[in-house]
Amino acid sequence: MKILVTGAAGFIGSNLTDRLLADGHEVTGFDNLSTGRTEFLNAALRAPGFHLRHGDLLDSGALESAMEDAEFVFHMAANADVRLGTQHPRKDLEQNTIGTANVLEAMRARGVRRMAFPSTGSVYGEPAIFPTPEDAPFPVQTSLYAASKLAAEAMIEAYSEGFGMEAHIFRFVSILGERYTHGHVLDFYQQLTEHAGHLEVLGDGRQRKSYLYVQDCVDAMLLAVDHGASRLNLYNLGTDEYCTVNDSIGWIAERMGCAPRLQYVGGQRGWVGDSPFIFLDCSRIRSLGWRPKLSIREAVVRTVDYLRGDT
Amino acid sequence: MKILVTGAAGFIGSNLTDRLLADGHEVTGFDNLSTGRTEFLNAALRAPGFHLRHGDLLDSGALESAMEDAEFVFHMAANADVRLGTQHPRKDLEQNTIGTANVLEAMRARGVRRMAFPSTGSVYGEPAIFPTPEDAPFPVQTSLYAASKLAAEAMIEAYSEGFGMEAHIFRFVSILGERYTHGHVLDFYQQLTEHAGHLEVLGDGRQRKSYLYVQDCVDAMLLAVDHGASRLNLYNLGTDEYCTVNDSIGWIAERMGCAPRLQYVGGQRGWVGDSPFIFLDCSRIRSLGWRPKLSIREAVVRTVDYLRGDT
Repeated sequence: MKILVTGAAGFIGSNLTDRLLADGHEVTGFDNLSTGRTEFLNAALRAPGFHLRHGDLLDSGALESAMEDAEFVFHMAANADVRLGTQHPRKDLEQNTIGTANVLEAMRARGVRRMAFPSTGSVYGEPAIFPTPEDAPFPVQTSLYAASKLAAEAMIEAYSEGFGMEAHIFRFVSILGERYTHGHVLDFYQQLTEHAGHLEVLGDGRQRKSYLYVQDCVDAMLLAVDHGASRLNLYNLGTDEYCTVNDSIGWIAERMGCAPRLQYVGGQRGWVGDSPFIFLDCSRIRSLGWRPKLSIREAVVRTVDYLRGDT
Repeated sequence: MKILVTGAAGFIGSNLTDRLLADGHEVTGFDNLSTGRTEFLNAALRAPGFHLRHGDLLDSGALESAMEDAEFVFHMAANADVRLGTQHPRKDLEQNTIGTANVLEAMRARGVRRMAFPSTGSVYGEPAIFPTPEDAPFPVQTSLYAASKLAAEAMIEAYSEGFGMEAHIFRFVSILGERYTHGHVLDFYQQLTEHAGHLEVLGDGRQRKSYLYVQDCVDAMLLAVDHGASRLNLYNLGTDEYCTVNDSIGWIAERMGCAPRLQYVGGQRGWVGDSPFIFLDCSRIRSLGWRPKLSIREAVVRTVDYLRGDT
């Protein structure tokens, strides 16, 4: 199949690209290289079935051109850092909301009728139900990042209804693994590399979070797309467990062979919009036969190994 | 209070503006006059406390300028016709989603910390629960209009959380009354004015819809804003009843003194994204003491009278 992957040079996009190429697909990667890294595509760039287009989601012409002949779009490009929304509110709007509108319009212009989109468990805001199912009560948004992803979900649903597109929406927990480029495991790793005896922690360390290994994430998306039961398909993606920030600090420190003194800053939340408890009900994707291969602990340890250059 | 009303020349915005002026507030109206009509502001323009600024939501500078000294923003401007989304998908994105982002940024730039926003009951998509409460299960969007309003809601919530703004979000049923400018009562009225013996109906006539009289809508918004219990306040706004399209046709035809032959076109839905049943649980706004003064039937009849020039 001829597939367009936006954000192909990113953390998840590049892992997905490698897998699609290994599965024999032709892949066009589209990336503005703002947070993506060409080195993540070193293997892909040697594959005959891969082409990289340097372009931005706000350039509709470049998007349409990259989409020529595509049969499926994995729209992975995004401004992915939830924490910085209040520092530059326009970025989430432009790269996530308007960017997705442009992808949908380019698909319509080119007659591409199938797509997949990574959303976020953050769209549940601060839910009252755990584990949180896909049809949880109508949420209230607490971050500009989640607001922009919800806006993108909503447009995809409306395009699916209005223009008959097949869409697969995935609400991710935080993803870990090879090519991980931002988030708290990186922050803790970097701090402990600089000063092994001391770690500053945003929040009180008791925030409960869920994580998923990137290869498990890619497995789940491809399984769901292959399954493709209906026009609109929406899945939570995570493990059936959660850990506290303190748990993950313990695993990271153990793997790095250090025992830092912890200094907690801020209150219960690490930053404005930080959800103190993320734990998704993933029975829907599990009903397709998917199982994650790594536990949260194993995913954290593997991420530390990647950051140390061991993988 | 000094109040900015975007969309002040529109159907609901102009009725709200007249009321705010009558209540002694100073009002700056902001409108691009694309669907708004200056004649709706004839009374307001004679009031010393009213100023009209001609500008578009996409012009951030004009917005910021209009917002000078404002203490409260009623952000009523929108592309309000749900039916035409698939004909020009960019319009809902620009006027509703990006427009709201610009209003929020202008508020932040000017230090305006309080606002109200009309959303739509259409954000519930095709709900499974009737009457539909504010915390209904996470909906799937079926129109670009509703998607753009949900995107705006989400941004307002994130700004409220991230920047401490006070926000009032209202999910409206269809609004009727004086200065009504689009929707099925107008369509039916215009058809029956041209040919009293024949009426073409989009859908099967059995779609169940809810309506609210514009003065009841304004009452409810002002009551909720005065009540202002918490930082983020979200209310459904409608009557505790619904009618079928056929019911409303009967009332319109009776008032116009005709008995048209009905021709149904399309299937169960009037257009792509038309919700076959809209009926909101309004117990939250009722708990503040609000009651609509007109029934749906009375609101339909009054709208016909307005269209005939009797009011």
